[in-house]
Amino acid sequence: MTGNHLAAELNPPPRLIMGPGPLMADPRVLRAMATPMLGQFDPAFLDVMARTQAMFREVYRTQNEQTLMIDGSARAGIEAALVSLIEPGDRVLVPMFGRFGHLLREIAERCGAEVVIIEQEWGKVFALDDLEKAIKRHSPRIVALVHADTSTTVAQPLEGIGALCRAQGAYLYVDACASIGCEDIRVDDWEIDAISSGLQKGLSGPPGMSPVSLSERAVKRIRNRRHVEAGVRPAGYVAGEGPRIRSNYFDLSMLMDYWGPDHLNHHTEATSMIYAAHECARIFLQEGHEAVFARHRSVEAALRAGLEAMGLTIFGDRAVKMSNVTGVFIPGGVDGDAVRKGLLTHFGIEIGTSFGPLHGKIWRIGTMGYTARKENVLICLGALEAMLLKAGFKLPAGEAVQAAIKVFDKAAR
Amino acid sequence: MTGNHLAAELNPPPRLIMGPGPLMADPRVLRAMATPMLGQFDPAFLDVMARTQAMFREVYRTQNEQTLMIDGSARAGIEAALVSLIEPGDRVLVPMFGRFGHLLREIAERCGAEVVIIEQEWGKVFALDDLEKAIKRHSPRIVALVHADTSTTVAQPLEGIGALCRAQGAYLYVDACASIGCEDIRVDDWEIDAISSGLQKGLSGPPGMSPVSLSERAVKRIRNRRHVEAGVRPAGYVAGEGPRIRSNYFDLSMLMDYWGPDHLNHHTEATSMIYAAHECARIFLQEGHEAVFARHRSVEAALRAGLEAMGLTIFGDRAVKMSNVTGVFIPGGVDGDAVRKGLLTHFGIEIGTSFGPLHGKIWRIGTMGYTARKENVLICLGALEAMLLKAGFKLPAGEAVQAAIKVFDKAAR
Repeated sequence: MTGNHLAAELNPPPRLIMGPGPLMADPRVLRAMATPMLGQFDPAFLDVMARTQAMFREVYRTQNEQTLMIDGSARAGIEAALVSLIEPGDRVLVPMFGRFGHLLREIAERCGAEVVIIEQEWGKVFALDDLEKAIKRHSPRIVALVHADTSTTVAQPLEGIGALCRAQGAYLYVDACASIGCEDIRVDDWEIDAISSGLQKGLSGPPGMSPVSLSERAVKRIRNRRHVEAGVRPAGYVAGEGPRIRSNYFDLSMLMDYWGPDHLNHHTEATSMIYAAHECARIFLQEGHEAVFARHRSVEAALRAGLEAMGLTIFGDRAVKMSNVTGVFIPGGVDGDAVRKGLLTHFGIEIGTSFGPLHGKIWRIGTMGYTARKENVLICLGALEAMLLKAGFKLPAGEAVQAAIKVFDKAAR
Repeated sequence: MTGNHLAAELNPPPRLIMGPGPLMADPRVLRAMATPMLGQFDPAFLDVMARTQAMFREVYRTQNEQTLMIDGSARAGIEAALVSLIEPGDRVLVPMFGRFGHLLREIAERCGAEVVIIEQEWGKVFALDDLEKAIKRHSPRIVALVHADTSTTVAQPLEGIGALCRAQGAYLYVDACASIGCEDIRVDDWEIDAISSGLQKGLSGPPGMSPVSLSERAVKRIRNRRHVEAGVRPAGYVAGEGPRIRSNYFDLSMLMDYWGPDHLNHHTEATSMIYAAHECARIFLQEGHEAVFARHRSVEAALRAGLEAMGLTIFGDRAVKMSNVTGVFIPGGVDGDAVRKGLLTHFGIEIGTSFGPLHGKIWRIGTMGYTARKENVLICLGALEAMLLKAGFKLPAGEAVQAAIKVFDKAAR
């Protein structure tokens, strides 16, 4: 490779990305990242940070003072929340209904938790009663739950779970990576103690930053583990009584000091990614929660109509299906990976494969954020139809796109 | 804030950033971040990742196969290296000669290490003999060392330390955040087992990504702790015998699987930041190691000449002074913070304050990467002179800039 790299400028092919994420970023977010740097303690940069926090409070519908960004992917936000909340030996209940429940379990174990799981069949979610029983039975210190799991295309209704947790003295953590910007999230109303997400799905940004929000009671628990590193301790500093958090980078106590009015030195904030987060939130709020959610529902209805018009079957429990990812069964006799490859090489379109028990059975088509647009649905349906015809699958040619257009036309009236 | 945020577009003031970092990013790096997204397993994206790895091998002057990026700030790279190398109970030796030694100690402690420190006065570095004695005396499993510490403006010469470590069965980790792209780093020649850095100083990029490289023996040690998370385990998977790494996000064993030919699912790679890293490395290699280092030395010589012409005194042991950060004593009777504030508000120029024992005693002026340019030195000197005159400090007006120009002219001949 020596020598050649000098010529190898960055020049990736254009793609229509309709997988489970990352998807395409809004051009306004991409442009925001080209904004020149600011010093990390420059008053102008602190102002950008504060405005980003304020906007994410609105996105999450919360008054939580402690709403801040983790510099890392969505998984970094999960780990920051869990490693800061979980004291080694704590019991953590993970209700699992897809791949990302496995991830919460895995991270909680590495934080030193005693993890208890309950499992639901992929494609379904938990009834509130079942969660109540499990919480009463296991008396966990923390309940860690995925909101929407792209692996199964369904979303767990959250209303009522926070209250159940509080009644039992537990803290509720929610991974909202796949729902933020697409499904409603009401952090305060639903009494969520800690939530994290990402920019790269419904918020039309790049992966690499995770907005986190903490309730007052979560803050109190984490503050009790405050151990500021030597060299940056403020005057009058007293360490918390709880055990030191196992990670420095993900120590939310120190991150609160960094994002708070004292701006105690910690990591060097990821300037360009903060610009991206700022723009993601601004664009979302400009369109407005309800308009954004309605757009996702309308796009999903059109996509579904098109897929069904091709004779395909939608996966999962429709009552709890996510509006932004659609699982569709790969029809018998069709090589699912060959169709995906054909979409990429002939059309430059990416759709998703699937994990675990669904691997080889369904494709996943993502319609989130900037990608959730009429033209993308129509282009994707036409291309998928062409690849299915090429694969020898019998379908009523031309009907998918017409069916989708009908749904859009109806919604526009 | 509700309502107002819609109008609050991102519009930060232009700055000439000459602190210890982050500094200004090269406009080519900023533009690279505006490149549209790719799916994380798109062959075109895997190619960008592979080329980024290949270029960072050259930047680090290593053949290490395991050269990869951590999605997070420079501190994230430190934690990934240490949490993956340190097994709880391991003895870790941290030779401390500035603020960032405190950070290595802090992170190593949180990883469960028994940390032993040796300390050197701020502004000086360790003699190889002293390091040898300490390594022999304490028999550490890991030696964790800062290469260049912006807090003291000096760099620890690294040649010979790796051999000392290997002779005693220890692993050498180096934090090269402040030296990469400015001072020579020879990972293979110097037998460094693990190294991490960042983009936001000498590499002219934004903070938020940390290039890491691991020697074969470090890889072997970390592979022995391989515990792939449930749901993504490959066929024939057997867990390593060593203890599971305490972090999921920073588990270099899983990160090697993610960056390697199998591309096992882990986090969602930070697309725009990879584009930035790719461009940072490309720009650096295009100019060439030796030319970049010479540019930094020439800029530093001119800055120093200008500061001395004002009657100011340079901080630190000149024999080991970093070429990219210059500490200068705040003259008696001058309010250091008022001068810094004046530079920012009148000129839009940021220079650095200092930490710990140097707080209030020196300013730190950074000249790294894209910022290490003749015009920036001259503008900064002129502005500092003006602020010192305004503060009532007596100096030979006009001479600083002339002295610096003379150095540049001489270097250009």
